[in-house]
Amino acid sequence: MKATIYHGVGNISLEEIAKPTPGERDVLIKNIRSGICGTDVHAYLVEGESVGINPENQFGHEMVGVVEEVGAQVEGIVPGMRVFVNPTKVKPEGKGLSPNEIADMAGAFSEYIVVEEAALDYNLFLLPDDLSFDKAVITEPFSVAMHGVNLAHPKPGERALVYGGGVIGLCTLVALKSKGVEEVIVSDIKENRLAMIKELGGIPFDARTGNVIDFVKEKYGTLVGNMGEETIDVDLVIDAAGYNGVMEEFLANAKTLSRYVIVALNASNVPIVPLYVLAKELTILGSRGYTAQDIKEVIESLRSQENHLDKIITDVYPIEKVQEAFNKAIDAENTIKVVLAYE
Amino acid sequence: MKATIYHGVGNISLEEIAKPTPGERDVLIKNIRSGICGTDVHAYLVEGESVGINPENQFGHEMVGVVEEVGAQVEGIVPGMRVFVNPTKVKPEGKGLSPNEIADMAGAFSEYIVVEEAALDYNLFLLPDDLSFDKAVITEPFSVAMHGVNLAHPKPGERALVYGGGVIGLCTLVALKSKGVEEVIVSDIKENRLAMIKELGGIPFDARTGNVIDFVKEKYGTLVGNMGEETIDVDLVIDAAGYNGVMEEFLANAKTLSRYVIVALNASNVPIVPLYVLAKELTILGSRGYTAQDIKEVIESLRSQENHLDKIITDVYPIEKVQEAFNKAIDAENTIKVVLAYE
Repeated sequence: MKATIYHGVGNISLEEIAKPTPGERDVLIKNIRSGICGTDVHAYLVEGESVGINPENQFGHEMVGVVEEVGAQVEGIVPGMRVFVNPTKVKPEGKGLSPNEIADMAGAFSEYIVVEEAALDYNLFLLPDDLSFDKAVITEPFSVAMHGVNLAHPKPGERALVYGGGVIGLCTLVALKSKGVEEVIVSDIKENRLAMIKELGGIPFDARTGNVIDFVKEKYGTLVGNMGEETIDVDLVIDAAGYNGVMEEFLANAKTLSRYVIVALNASNVPIVPLYVLAKELTILGSRGYTAQDIKEVIESLRSQENHLDKIITDVYPIEKVQEAFNKAIDAENTIKVVLAYE
Repeated sequence: MKATIYHGVGNISLEEIAKPTPGERDVLIKNIRSGICGTDVHAYLVEGESVGINPENQFGHEMVGVVEEVGAQVEGIVPGMRVFVNPTKVKPEGKGLSPNEIADMAGAFSEYIVVEEAALDYNLFLLPDDLSFDKAVITEPFSVAMHGVNLAHPKPGERALVYGGGVIGLCTLVALKSKGVEEVIVSDIKENRLAMIKELGGIPFDARTGNVIDFVKEKYGTLVGNMGEETIDVDLVIDAAGYNGVMEEFLANAKTLSRYVIVALNASNVPIVPLYVLAKELTILGSRGYTAQDIKEVIESLRSQENHLDKIITDVYPIEKVQEAFNKAIDAENTIKVVLAYE
């Protein structure tokens, strides 16, 4: 089969390797569409090991496909089923992933992948007939966003501010709107993303033109918080950018009872004062990965006629042009989501 | 009527003032029991203004009593009703209290108090006949603790660590146990509190003898977190002490998916790394005051035969001995909760 191998920074190649054979409890999936994630781009541009992508291995973790072969002991799964592959093992609650794991399964950029210990609603999720592979390929990043949104328990009519209009920020916008959060400001600095924010029903803010907090204050006015401080009138703030200063900006301006969700990676040191977190009755949430419930909700949402999240797919390449696809994916000014197609 | 007036630090006196008259939408309450809160002690020992207790005013905000007079326009409330008075106005969600307000209503240390715009399940809560005033007087601090516990959504079988075994810490212990959290370690340094923690079914840790994290690790073993780090095996950590270093200790040792609730005031600056909050999937919650639902849950819990939280009431003084009561309340080594009785 064809498989994309990561050899190191700037060095990937499509190679012919042996097609894997599933064990008795496993399932062989034929990939139909896969998405190139920021993690894959990071490995291609900077280094892979810190994100679990090691040289001389297959990679890619966003994939949808068709069941090709089923091990003798697998129940409830038959060849021909259209599925989303959950690349993160759903481990017992509280155990989490192993160190440095982003995904437990890699091989979205290969023709076939074996899913071990296969089970529905665990590592394989049925795709409804009316949901195309072209749209379903967004399931993985959309699940990341949905998880962050669900942790914050948004209520219809609340307002949100999302930092970052990349794939996760855009998915967060659509996840919020699916929960009745109609007013969603999304801050970014790239023209193509700002246009997409608007197209998906968000309120774009061009961070090159000023400070988003000033924009929010001008748009919605301000409130007085429990310590007599001025606050913004936004209920949910989600960091899908990871830039330094975002959390500080939230803490300094947060509305009473508002929630802050950390979805993006940011290793900076942020000073917080427990007294203010108490006085403002804030909730700060770290969001990592997703649950089976998030995935099922995402598949239902993608199925809806009102969901146009597939608009973020700006480029589709056949697997034979994987090198070209990566060259495009690193050009953030001119692309949002790059997808690989196997047929 | 008799009323305790706060004149300033170390200066309170029981005086005769005019009995207040309720307006058409108000209710006059005859206080039966009231509790001396840490806030009242702070005003007596240090200063009152920062906690909303101003010189030449009545004070006290923990009270239970009997409805004495009812304004013509008040519905559903009749003289003779036994009630808990909620001293914090239940304002529209998201609005919170005004700056520096701890309570909107003060007068627990006076014979009578007017409750304006009185309504059941808003600022007055019915006490069941089988709940004595002697026990019901703990409703206010227990509601503070219950609110913090409810924010963290504890699940039966989870484990908790509570910093601080004062009134709020002990109420937190009992609130946790009412939710099926059986293993609750409570850390303190005072003999009387350590004994009470044990009596209420908690696991006392004497912080004079070592570090509580080492104690937790020895007792429950350790886990490996998402970054390969060693973590404690405790799901909920609640700061009811407010000492510097508590939050840092949590962040450095937190279990994946665990929750940290800030109930105590601590104005120190704590460095947090968003990446670790994400990697550990933590939730950090600021808890302030309580909701009507918390109060109702507390009243039900106090009513139960298994709830022995009234054990924390170590001293009861008649209102005539309010000065003596304060002298006792400031002696934390030899008292836990001091209560005033009006009959």
